[in-house]
Amino acid sequence: MSQLPEQPTEGPVPTSADVARLAGVSRATVSYVLNNNAAVRISDPTRRRVREAATELGYVPHAAARSLRAGHSRMVLLPTGNFPAAPLHHHFLHELEAGLRRLDYTVVQYGSLGLDAEDAARAWAELRPVAVIAPGSVPLTPQGIAVLRRSGAKAVFTLGPEPVAGAHALIMDQRQVGGCAVRHLMERGRRRIGVVMPEEPALALFAEPRLAGARQAASAGTARIEPLPLHHDEESAAALAARWRTLGLDAVFAYDDLHAMLLMRALQDAGIEVPGETAVVGADDLMLGRLLRPRLSSVRMELDTVQPLADLVDRLVRRPGKEPERHDLLRATAVHRESS
Amino acid sequence: MSQLPEQPTEGPVPTSADVARLAGVSRATVSYVLNNNAAVRISDPTRRRVREAATELGYVPHAAARSLRAGHSRMVLLPTGNFPAAPLHHHFLHELEAGLRRLDYTVVQYGSLGLDAEDAARAWAELRPVAVIAPGSVPLTPQGIAVLRRSGAKAVFTLGPEPVAGAHALIMDQRQVGGCAVRHLMERGRRRIGVVMPEEPALALFAEPRLAGARQAASAGTARIEPLPLHHDEESAAALAARWRTLGLDAVFAYDDLHAMLLMRALQDAGIEVPGETAVVGADDLMLGRLLRPRLSSVRMELDTVQPLADLVDRLVRRPGKEPERHDLLRATAVHRESS
Repeated sequence: MSQLPEQPTEGPVPTSADVARLAGVSRATVSYVLNNNAAVRISDPTRRRVREAATELGYVPHAAARSLRAGHSRMVLLPTGNFPAAPLHHHFLHELEAGLRRLDYTVVQYGSLGLDAEDAARAWAELRPVAVIAPGSVPLTPQGIAVLRRSGAKAVFTLGPEPVAGAHALIMDQRQVGGCAVRHLMERGRRRIGVVMPEEPALALFAEPRLAGARQAASAGTARIEPLPLHHDEESAAALAARWRTLGLDAVFAYDDLHAMLLMRALQDAGIEVPGETAVVGADDLMLGRLLRPRLSSVRMELDTVQPLADLVDRLVRRPGKEPERHDLLRATAVHRESS
Repeated sequence: MSQLPEQPTEGPVPTSADVARLAGVSRATVSYVLNNNAAVRISDPTRRRVREAATELGYVPHAAARSLRAGHSRMVLLPTGNFPAAPLHHHFLHELEAGLRRLDYTVVQYGSLGLDAEDAARAWAELRPVAVIAPGSVPLTPQGIAVLRRSGAKAVFTLGPEPVAGAHALIMDQRQVGGCAVRHLMERGRRRIGVVMPEEPALALFAEPRLAGARQAASAGTARIEPLPLHHDEESAAALAARWRTLGLDAVFAYDDLHAMLLMRALQDAGIEVPGETAVVGADDLMLGRLLRPRLSSVRMELDTVQPLADLVDRLVRRPGKEPERHDLLRATAVHRESS
């Protein structure tokens, strides 16, 4: 531990009354000016005087006090899961946050931290959000949704592979990803297709629907699907590669590019030629796939543009409606390179 | 768009007065029970009755109303940057969040969203956090810190490579990473060492101190350091590899494992042997480095355990003190594999 320059001096927290006194206006006028209330006409010199007084005193409005007065909040809560969001997902959430901010919402993220679904919903409800957008990695039950709605949330959304009863559903349909990979392999003549199933519990939410999509695509042709449990470590991959020839497979959809990289290395180390003996397809279309030899085929995922979604959230906050809505966001396409 | 089962019926938001009425107790008693106030003795049957009434009505306490009454909040704000946190960082923040929750703080994350540093600080201040922990990727100025402190934040921390005047500093000293990589290369007889400088602006915060650490380590011996600007794409890597032999280098510290993977592939494609002609070291010690051939040497980074940090935050909230404190969190060690 060492010491740095001194901190600013402590003092009482300035209030809107202090700003009103310094600017020589009423507290209501301070509130109208600093909350950008356009419904009330206030002269430009007065607005300027209020803003200068606020700056001089270091006053900022109190979001919670404002929402208590207004009887509703402008807070949109994004619960976060316990593992980092995929880059695609992260970018999407960031854009959504910016879109909601343009509509004057305050977006905060809040961890679920291993709480069970209902305790988590109660913790979120304590913040009195006007809307909640819960990613699929975060548990949300119909009971939890009821708690949130009873505490004033006008709209509750889930964002993930499956809808939850009582919430609006922003669907990222992972079945498309598995279906897309398997159709790509079938078009290239493969019929005995392994599907990697990561053993990390947090990934089951994505892996199960990817497998279901793979099965559906295979049943439309004459292909066979073989689920292949795999830990994301070298030992597990080497063990799978060691028994590869007993499985009688001619292709594998490896869940994603990171698992594909792991398995392709293990197959190559075991003398199995890719793609001659076994074709490999990943998903996510990461740059690292293009750095592998053979270059990795993949499934590219794209999400809808975000501003219409921010507008949707705003519409459902202002006019909640009776029925949950469902919107599909994800589009998947196969990207052919050398490994398939 | 399609429709899902019906949502729970709308109704007025239940208040603590409703809970008090149903349980036949005072509002103060409801508050003591639901906020787990241990200073007030309340019988177990009464506690049970209050909890049951709250559950029946779907009531949860209102965090903002509670903090307005108490005159201070228990909210710790973690501003978030515009790009995903590295896995190490993400895990650390998650642990810190859990540690603060054990101390009864509410931890929320809030984006800075391309606001300038002072507008961002004002947006955070509107939430009236009692503490703010800002990662290095988020801009925070002495003026912003003053705004936060004036609005009631008892402690403001930065978490990153450099301290900011007026805030407590949780330092992840990136110079160690560069120093560690260069010492490793020098021990293996290398003297003409390139240091990859990613051209992505968001990474400059880490790249500059890594370069400074590399230079410092080199100047202790007789090695020369050559900064190598690089975009994270194949074209940029191929261009660097094409002029590699004109640079006269015998080693490269590639900023991190992802850049190392990119550059090593380009060097190999250009016929430059690794490690014979050029040794390569990454950083982050990702599993993918072990899947490359040759296996990638790397710098492993570890952070201090988190509960003492949560305790530190709590101590500085309760007894702010006059002087900012500084704590170093990062330890770096070289991991030798085949590429160096």
